[in-house]
Amino acid sequence: MLNPGQRLRLIKFVAYGWSLERTLPAMRDQVAAALAAAHQAGWEGLLAEQRRYLDDFWARADVEIEGDSAVQQAVRYALFQVLSAGARAEGRAIPAKGLTGNGYNGHSFWDTEVYVVPVLTYTAPSAAADALRWRHSVLDAATQRARDLGLSGAAFPWRTIHGEECSGYWPASTAAFHINADIADAVVRYVTTTGDDRFERDIGIDILVQTARLWRSLGHYDLWGHFRIDGVTGPDEYSAIADNNVYTNLMAQRNLGTAASACERHSDKARELGVTPDEMAGWRAAADRILIPYDGRLGVHPQAERFTDHEVWDFAATRPDQYPLLLHFPYFDIYRKQVVKQPDLVLAMLMCSHAFTPEQKLRNFDYYERITVRDSSLSACTQAVLAAEVGHLRLAFDYAAEAALMDLQDIEHNVRDGLHIASLAGTWIAFVGGFGGMRDHGDVLTFAPRLPENLARLSFLITRRGQCLRVSLTARAATYALADRSGTLRIAHYGEPLTLTGAEPIERAVPPPPSREPPTQPPGREPRRRSPG
Amino acid sequence: MLNPGQRLRLIKFVAYGWSLERTLPAMRDQVAAALAAAHQAGWEGLLAEQRRYLDDFWARADVEIEGDSAVQQAVRYALFQVLSAGARAEGRAIPAKGLTGNGYNGHSFWDTEVYVVPVLTYTAPSAAADALRWRHSVLDAATQRARDLGLSGAAFPWRTIHGEECSGYWPASTAAFHINADIADAVVRYVTTTGDDRFERDIGIDILVQTARLWRSLGHYDLWGHFRIDGVTGPDEYSAIADNNVYTNLMAQRNLGTAASACERHSDKARELGVTPDEMAGWRAAADRILIPYDGRLGVHPQAERFTDHEVWDFAATRPDQYPLLLHFPYFDIYRKQVVKQPDLVLAMLMCSHAFTPEQKLRNFDYYERITVRDSSLSACTQAVLAAEVGHLRLAFDYAAEAALMDLQDIEHNVRDGLHIASLAGTWIAFVGGFGGMRDHGDVLTFAPRLPENLARLSFLITRRGQCLRVSLTARAATYALADRSGTLRIAHYGEPLTLTGAEPIERAVPPPPSREPPTQPPGREPRRRSPG
Repeated sequence: MLNPGQRLRLIKFVAYGWSLERTLPAMRDQVAAALAAAHQAGWEGLLAEQRRYLDDFWARADVEIEGDSAVQQAVRYALFQVLSAGARAEGRAIPAKGLTGNGYNGHSFWDTEVYVVPVLTYTAPSAAADALRWRHSVLDAATQRARDLGLSGAAFPWRTIHGEECSGYWPASTAAFHINADIADAVVRYVTTTGDDRFERDIGIDILVQTARLWRSLGHYDLWGHFRIDGVTGPDEYSAIADNNVYTNLMAQRNLGTAASACERHSDKARELGVTPDEMAGWRAAADRILIPYDGRLGVHPQAERFTDHEVWDFAATRPDQYPLLLHFPYFDIYRKQVVKQPDLVLAMLMCSHAFTPEQKLRNFDYYERITVRDSSLSACTQAVLAAEVGHLRLAFDYAAEAALMDLQDIEHNVRDGLHIASLAGTWIAFVGGFGGMRDHGDVLTFAPRLPENLARLSFLITRRGQCLRVSLTARAATYALADRSGTLRIAHYGEPLTLTGAEPIERAVPPPPSREPPTQPPGREPRRRSPG
Repeated sequence: MLNPGQRLRLIKFVAYGWSLERTLPAMRDQVAAALAAAHQAGWEGLLAEQRRYLDDFWARADVEIEGDSAVQQAVRYALFQVLSAGARAEGRAIPAKGLTGNGYNGHSFWDTEVYVVPVLTYTAPSAAADALRWRHSVLDAATQRARDLGLSGAAFPWRTIHGEECSGYWPASTAAFHINADIADAVVRYVTTTGDDRFERDIGIDILVQTARLWRSLGHYDLWGHFRIDGVTGPDEYSAIADNNVYTNLMAQRNLGTAASACERHSDKARELGVTPDEMAGWRAAADRILIPYDGRLGVHPQAERFTDHEVWDFAATRPDQYPLLLHFPYFDIYRKQVVKQPDLVLAMLMCSHAFTPEQKLRNFDYYERITVRDSSLSACTQAVLAAEVGHLRLAFDYAAEAALMDLQDIEHNVRDGLHIASLAGTWIAFVGGFGGMRDHGDVLTFAPRLPENLARLSFLITRRGQCLRVSLTARAATYALADRSGTLRIAHYGEPLTLTGAEPIERAVPPPPSREPPTQPPGREPRRRSPG
């Protein structure tokens, strides 16, 4: 009995258990045990445990931004959501919406490996490993799928929960084979970032070998000795079933090469998988001879062969209420014209940076900027990175801010369906890859940082081979520091190789940004202006 | 009461009435009237009426073949079935199966205009006119469909009963825009064959103008001034959504040109349709600049741009029980490889004969023969015509016989679903276009006849501008005769212009056929050998 003015504090512990494999009594036991442990730890004890976990994460992963407090908050919100989606996946796929909503019915797609897993790799590597272990757990379904399609190796599903292909519209799913190279790339990135040799040997090599086999059987040599991959769909969902998609071919090239290298490192395991020296030579030859189309007349890379010959979408005749286009125009119309939903060639320039000269990047970015409508949340973050790289810093910040605020400001009007986990991960990529200019070349991380005018400072942390690298940037200077005084790490700053030691930070000047005329976007599809000036 | 051995003859008249528009009582009246008329005419009277109708048809349409009596019978069977399908369409579409079965659920397709209507045009022109009037009757639905697709003019449905698009798989239906040029071609063929000016003015010009408008809006000029038609599907159903399909572009070219010519002939009607001189100039310019891809490296026309760069289907690894391929392999796999279900480029060489040199025809035919699996009944007849033209006469006869016997011998094992009306019409085309070598150039019919060794004689009849032309062929000579003594007709025999009069037949020598190595087909996909020797 409480008297008026008295207060009663109730603490209620709720435990949740879930399993596909265990029995109901076993799950009840699990939940009961969790409750017992909670009782023992108490509310404050649980809180402290959670705080320790997150403090540890932020100490390895925080991104600090000076100059836009709303964006600062959004970037941290993004990181927290990416961690939540990844750290509690519990051996299951990381779905497009994480555990935050019903959008996409809980399915997982390629963007997990292209956006989410890399961010986890640099900030919470054990969560990245878990996500890749899940892919490995559905490898049997993927090899069966490849067989069903008349192909070798493994064909991972476009959308899935359990490993089976759950999309019924094959031009935008089965044909989007790049997901296999995306997964292979995430494996290699995890292994090179962590140095987790055992993971490569136990998990990674299976995926690398089976995806390399897929590419070798999917492509063929034409009469001129080019290795072609015809009739596939790239990342841009406003095109489908095209020949020699640049993103796909570059990623397949890397997949073929890294599989061969992994087999050399683990020759006994490779033998177990039936990989012969001839097969490895076949992968390397295909990688060497892969066709990367280039339109010399326009001086740009076509997204796929012939893309730049197609009619340009009539943006002037498209009303604002007709976006997203896929809800208002037939795929027939969209597929045959130059209009881009989300970066495809521009994503290739991010993921396979080495394959393009700076001049090509500038021309390509400007070309695709004019035809990209950003009807996907996977656009802004990638556009931010390349805008920064080619020198459009204000535009880059507008895109980075859009990615950061996607869900907090409900920019796509569908946050009720759940968060855009990949776009949230892309926020980190926009700041680290864009303004930090970080590129991962496997053997070395390189940086070419460049801040937009409205940011006074940007700093971020990268976990690499167990070491924590802090990069601190101002408009004029970049400082690289290792947390561990006994560590060493090779990096490069604007092409200058640096060997960092824990003894002292290295500071280098940041060259002034180029002055460039910014490119235009389709009318009405510009990002919201966030950068002042 | 009949005693044993006595005979009773019962004659029962059955009438059938059908209408979408009239009321049930009106249809009952119609049926009652038909029964009353039958009673009055009596069984013998009805029989005589039917006999007169068919005697008249055979007097204008018979094809006589000496040397293979089963094929002779089959060719007449084919003509009878084509007439039955066309003459009793009663203002409705001619379905793929005519009225003979449930296959394709009563739907009508492009092959009506490409195979059935031309044969009716030369043998029973009023039935051809009826079929085209039906197309005209669904023009409103087609203009609405074009609007829905963001296009001008009219987009006729791929499969339909009432004029709406009834196919749910757009890569093999909506994208197969060539149906519009096929319909326009059938209109022009009917008008030039009959001289039916009033039909052109009242019916034909509407179709020509709206289809020309469709092509003008579907194509676009590239930076080099070529008029391209991207992202469409040609006649071959083992490819889809390709750029600059040769058949489509050549037929569109003709469509654009003939629409402009019809507008010049009927300038008042053209004005009513809102056609301006600028619009006509636009059609002509697009026709002039249309892109026809050619693979100079292989010396053949690719079916569509890049087709000849694709991987060739692995025929050696395909088991006999895996045909038809579409039931055993995913479209993803089929579409991206060089494998042809039914002639596409080869059909272009029949329909647009003028666009290819004899050397190109020979090389193209041989190339496509090696990759055509004939999984469609629309194959053999077209292959027969081109095989004959390039000089593979035994092969041509084997194909012609296959087309002729398609249903009588149930070659495709599905005659229970109904007859292949277009293939039956194709039988006529195989003999008249193949061994008769007839090509219709609008202003003049040309002949380049050539008999296979096993035929001693071939004769056929063509109705043109109300006159009946009889062509009689032996291995050595061709005789051209008009039935009407007061008639005149311009034709050509192997390039020699001839003016036929009813006064006397003209006989010309037939040059000996070339001696050619026959091409090969995919293993197991050769036509049954029918020609002896």
